[in-house]
Amino acid sequence: MEKLTSIHNQHVKNWKKLQTKKYRRQTGMYLLDGWHLVNEAVQSGVQILQLIGTSEQLAAHPDLNSLTDEVYEVTEEVMQHITDTVTPQGIAAVVPLPDAHKVPDMESLHGGWLFLDRVQDPGNVGTMVRTADAAGFAGVVVSHRSADIFSPKVIRSMQGSQFHLKLYEGDLAKWIEDFKTVNAPIYGTQLNPQAKSFRDAEPGKTFALIMGNEGQGMSDQLLSQTTANLYIPMRGQAESLNVAVSAGILMFQLNKNL
Amino acid sequence: MEKLTSIHNQHVKNWKKLQTKKYRRQTGMYLLDGWHLVNEAVQSGVQILQLIGTSEQLAAHPDLNSLTDEVYEVTEEVMQHITDTVTPQGIAAVVPLPDAHKVPDMESLHGGWLFLDRVQDPGNVGTMVRTADAAGFAGVVVSHRSADIFSPKVIRSMQGSQFHLKLYEGDLAKWIEDFKTVNAPIYGTQLNPQAKSFRDAEPGKTFALIMGNEGQGMSDQLLSQTTANLYIPMRGQAESLNVAVSAGILMFQLNKNL
Repeated sequence: MEKLTSIHNQHVKNWKKLQTKKYRRQTGMYLLDGWHLVNEAVQSGVQILQLIGTSEQLAAHPDLNSLTDEVYEVTEEVMQHITDTVTPQGIAAVVPLPDAHKVPDMESLHGGWLFLDRVQDPGNVGTMVRTADAAGFAGVVVSHRSADIFSPKVIRSMQGSQFHLKLYEGDLAKWIEDFKTVNAPIYGTQLNPQAKSFRDAEPGKTFALIMGNEGQGMSDQLLSQTTANLYIPMRGQAESLNVAVSAGILMFQLNKNL
Repeated sequence: MEKLTSIHNQHVKNWKKLQTKKYRRQTGMYLLDGWHLVNEAVQSGVQILQLIGTSEQLAAHPDLNSLTDEVYEVTEEVMQHITDTVTPQGIAAVVPLPDAHKVPDMESLHGGWLFLDRVQDPGNVGTMVRTADAAGFAGVVVSHRSADIFSPKVIRSMQGSQFHLKLYEGDLAKWIEDFKTVNAPIYGTQLNPQAKSFRDAEPGKTFALIMGNEGQGMSDQLLSQTTANLYIPMRGQAESLNVAVSAGILMFQLNKNL
């Protein structure tokens, strides 16, 4: 076990750099901050590359040493520096970045799927992945020009749901085409005259739901590929719902037959 | 019209202080930032006490001058200072703080109501008020020790919904008692053996839904007062849903008969 006390140490600098998308891609690793996420990773059989803890946390949990050969004892100051958390729990782990660039295969074309089209806010993306997990969805595909799914804020909002379902980045147009080959409905979420109330949607065991960008909604290209558009009837004077709230309402309607 | 260019001007200092709960209470005023909120206030007949704009915005909308005698032209720097927004739209208004300390009356005991029990996050509180508006609820009552409903972050998340429904602070125990006198169901949201699936709830035109604190859920006292507890069946491995997402799923189920 190595003890690190300075934020200028090269290991510490590298962990800090994992906050950037570029360095995560270069190294193929990302950081999990806190007990909940580290435990979720361990329980899911994810390889722990490096374990980072304060002296108290490492002493209180001697079993952690068996997880990896690379254990680092750090100060609270170092922990704060690498996690960007005001009161970190004193435990973190570096784990492999999954290969998210998945091309759909037949095995994937089953179950409920959530497609995110250029959703910008990391909290929204993370919350929707967490909600998809709770709704029993099989997976989430995030389009290019969305918030990066392994950024610290998305990781925090997902609360470990990346270990429970399939999480990919990809070309949604291609995914939609493949879902169509198995006759699975693709539900868009743009309000237009042909849209039908979400209460009337009765999908089977395989379908996809597309949520669009916070300000602009879904792209026209994707919209032209949907089999139906769903809307949530608004009763008050509010003009719209938060995208993560809308996604929750829709997913817990569509999951009835999953 | 007065022109203000310094953040040390007394007016500017006072507007900045409206970001604190204490000063909002002292003065009985709060600040609306941006076109959407200012327009919502005007359309709702809310009195504009002071109008604050950059020279471009005031020049582009000469009709604004008729709204109030107190119009202030400020620099973009001043606007940024008072709104805490990186790229403010250049328009803001000071409006009266409604008297939110409402004791329930017979008129209020009608429609769908959302009760928030010590919800801490301003974004969650604001999003739930906005969702209640979209769901056609009559009002929202926020308990003491919740996020302040007129703080800048709550105002931003509400997106003007405070002008569309009744929004009060109050003693939820008292509100519940009064709803019981008209035999309206009070739905709690704590998972326990007696809880029933939200899909089986069929309220009439008057009911209340209680959402609890993000970490601790509802208080035991309120829980003992509910007529039923609702839960959202989780299908995946996620342990919980974001409180604002849960509230959205529940409100758009309960509003079917509103």
